[in-house]
Amino acid sequence: MRKKIKIAVIGYGNIGKAAVEAIIASPDMDLLGVVEQPSFIKNIPLLDSLHIPMVTSIRELEGVEVALLCVPSRSVPQIAREVLALGINTVDCYDIHKSLADLRIQLHEVAQLNKAVAVVSAGWDPGTDSMIRCMFQFMTPVGITYTNFGPGMSMGHSVAVRSIPGVEDALSMTIPVGAGVHRRMVYVQLKEDTDFAEVEKAVKTDPYFINDETHVVQVPDVSQLIDVGHGVEMIRKGVSGTTHNQILNFSMHINNPALTAQVMVASARASLKQKPGAYTMIQIPIIDYMYGNPDDIIRELY
Amino acid sequence: MRKKIKIAVIGYGNIGKAAVEAIIASPDMDLLGVVEQPSFIKNIPLLDSLHIPMVTSIRELEGVEVALLCVPSRSVPQIAREVLALGINTVDCYDIHKSLADLRIQLHEVAQLNKAVAVVSAGWDPGTDSMIRCMFQFMTPVGITYTNFGPGMSMGHSVAVRSIPGVEDALSMTIPVGAGVHRRMVYVQLKEDTDFAEVEKAVKTDPYFINDETHVVQVPDVSQLIDVGHGVEMIRKGVSGTTHNQILNFSMHINNPALTAQVMVASARASLKQKPGAYTMIQIPIIDYMYGNPDDIIRELY
Repeated sequence: MRKKIKIAVIGYGNIGKAAVEAIIASPDMDLLGVVEQPSFIKNIPLLDSLHIPMVTSIRELEGVEVALLCVPSRSVPQIAREVLALGINTVDCYDIHKSLADLRIQLHEVAQLNKAVAVVSAGWDPGTDSMIRCMFQFMTPVGITYTNFGPGMSMGHSVAVRSIPGVEDALSMTIPVGAGVHRRMVYVQLKEDTDFAEVEKAVKTDPYFINDETHVVQVPDVSQLIDVGHGVEMIRKGVSGTTHNQILNFSMHINNPALTAQVMVASARASLKQKPGAYTMIQIPIIDYMYGNPDDIIRELY
Repeated sequence: MRKKIKIAVIGYGNIGKAAVEAIIASPDMDLLGVVEQPSFIKNIPLLDSLHIPMVTSIRELEGVEVALLCVPSRSVPQIAREVLALGINTVDCYDIHKSLADLRIQLHEVAQLNKAVAVVSAGWDPGTDSMIRCMFQFMTPVGITYTNFGPGMSMGHSVAVRSIPGVEDALSMTIPVGAGVHRRMVYVQLKEDTDFAEVEKAVKTDPYFINDETHVVQVPDVSQLIDVGHGVEMIRKGVSGTTHNQILNFSMHINNPALTAQVMVASARASLKQKPGAYTMIQIPIIDYMYGNPDDIIRELY
């Protein structure tokens, strides 16, 4: 039996907290510490009770094998490079679809140079949804896959609304209306003396919203609407060989940070079974994400 | 660009016919021939029109890289050994869940010895369903997955009924009733002077049926009921980290031989990217099943 995997969490926001919970729940993992910026360091009862230190640099932790990068996507490229340079594997949940392929290529070189492994975009979309989209593609090579998100909060859209003058706080919900089309329900809490009609117009003409059906609703307190549940439904109708009308469907309703963190934890495990380099989830065998003896897994789950 | 994959189909039943269609539809594959027993050799207009020979031994075909074993599960172990001994990769859709792990271990040695690759149980269940069951497991390590099959024909159950005295022909349909429980709808066509009540009792007390709710219905002609559509719904409710009530669902409604054959074709492609040995589908990265440049696939499908 291999010794426990020595793991660190970088960033203690929503995902970082869920990652700590998932690591503690994993029989094969040992959480060495949580890394945060100096201004965020504080006593966390859960961590204190387990004698898990909160530190300001991963260099303060001895023998880390894998670091989970629970940081905003825009910080991932830089932090991943720094951690890989220490010969430590990284797992991130970088969620910018259009640039993740290039990020992987960039990190591949850094990882190989430092004999480490990076697992890139290991969340649910991109991540496990991507795995299923690829499976749907090889099961029915001709056809259309629709990915319908929600209902759930969109961070990117919420941030865009918060930057509009007069907006105190905002929440953008993604509502699936089918065939990959989404409605945006935007809840805004306004500063005093702000004209709702002007905010509404600013939202609807923002590049984030201009192509979607968007409804703007004024509420007294956005914080009372926050629920981290999310979901997806992926539907494919396609052709296997010459046979049309093969119908495939995947859907889930989940706590978003909890699932993201659990996928990152599974990817940390998988990272230790790969050769140096950077990988997306579809480039790693599914069994590598799992805990236990491979032959037992095949016996039990097949 | 790699040259086209040189492929052979062994067995020209339901799956073999669908495999031929799927190979012809694949841009990266070249079908060298179909292998059948001498008594089954005949002119097949589709094969003739494409100048694809039907032969009685794979040795008659020059340069085969992968053979799809479209033969009954009980014949797979022996035929796989023979083909692997020629240094040719094999893909089978061996569907006996309880012995596939051992089959893989046995073929692993033969494959390594002959510098070939075997992909074992590459259908949909076992196969792609197994991949999704494993994903559900690592996404929510604690919880229960229910696999609900159907509605669709069960070959094993149909064969069991056909062996009952007085039964001319039979069809057993698997009907999902939820939580992994199935109802069996058995349609029997009886020989003259057969007592239906006796057949009904024999079916219901057969080991294949004794634990399931089973209904037996007499029909004049079983052949008028045959439809190769099938389906599955897999439902998991589980825990990510410490967060309960994560709901995951996969379902499909498909033409059974067409999907099985398409999965085998994808596995043939994947076999050429593995080191010598025998693999189940969860031991191979998803991207290896796909056609095209890996970075382009990541760009387009993530």
